[in-house]
Amino acid sequence: MQKEDCIFCKIAKGEIPSTTVYENEDFRVIFDIAPASKGHTLIIPKQHYADIFDMDAQIGGRLFSLATAVAKSLKKELNCEGMNIVQNNGLIAGQTVFHFHLHLIPRYTGDTVNIKWNPGEANQEELKELASIVGKNI
Amino acid sequence: MQKEDCIFCKIAKGEIPSTTVYENEDFRVIFDIAPASKGHTLIIPKQHYADIFDMDAQIGGRLFSLATAVAKSLKKELNCEGMNIVQNNGLIAGQTVFHFHLHLIPRYTGDTVNIKWNPGEANQEELKELASIVGKNI
Repeated sequence: MQKEDCIFCKIAKGEIPSTTVYENEDFRVIFDIAPASKGHTLIIPKQHYADIFDMDAQIGGRLFSLATAVAKSLKKELNCEGMNIVQNNGLIAGQTVFHFHLHLIPRYTGDTVNIKWNPGEANQEELKELASIVGKNI
Repeated sequence: MQKEDCIFCKIAKGEIPSTTVYENEDFRVIFDIAPASKGHTLIIPKQHYADIFDMDAQIGGRLFSLATAVAKSLKKELNCEGMNIVQNNGLIAGQTVFHFHLHLIPRYTGDTVNIKWNPGEANQEELKELASIVGKNI
């Protein structure tokens, strides 16, 4: 279902033009208009899902299967040195358009991409308990 | 196939202990031992793939389908405010273990996770040409 006033619904369905790399029944693959690096690509489902918490498991599967092919093609044609695949959920996580999208960001020496975190410490007992709780819903 | 001396092959197959959240034939889901935030989770395929460029499309699909369930369960149980899903390929992209793995990083106010890039400018003509080249391999 399309969501009114969602820019990525409109882009995914071709109602707003984009530089399309690939398209099938479920997804549109486009170049980001404000790329982090050369070849920064987005995979956008045509169906509206706000984020991963809203995402259908089967469509999610098809999306990442497609992502493996897109990543391989980008690597081949751009000769990048690596790639970050990023999918942000929620304002706090840097999501700016609230229609699920997967970023493929080719990496090159000297680029300005910064994807880092400080390694923390975990309480093993707490983690074991949490693992059991989280695992029950999967 | 298992790769000799790959720590994630050993963890995925249970030869090295980990805090396991979930396991099936293809994947082990564990908590990161040096978490970026509470509930930082890894999905590791049991089969060895170095990175996304080496990844089987079907296994990639199954992995992200599972990721939707893991994300939903983490959100439900941790009540996080958002989530970054990150998959790094190559030393330049921050990959430290060269066995494909997907990070699910729950986000909370005041955490230290930094996932950012500077929006760049794109040459539309160049992108159009590149889209046609990259699209041919997908």
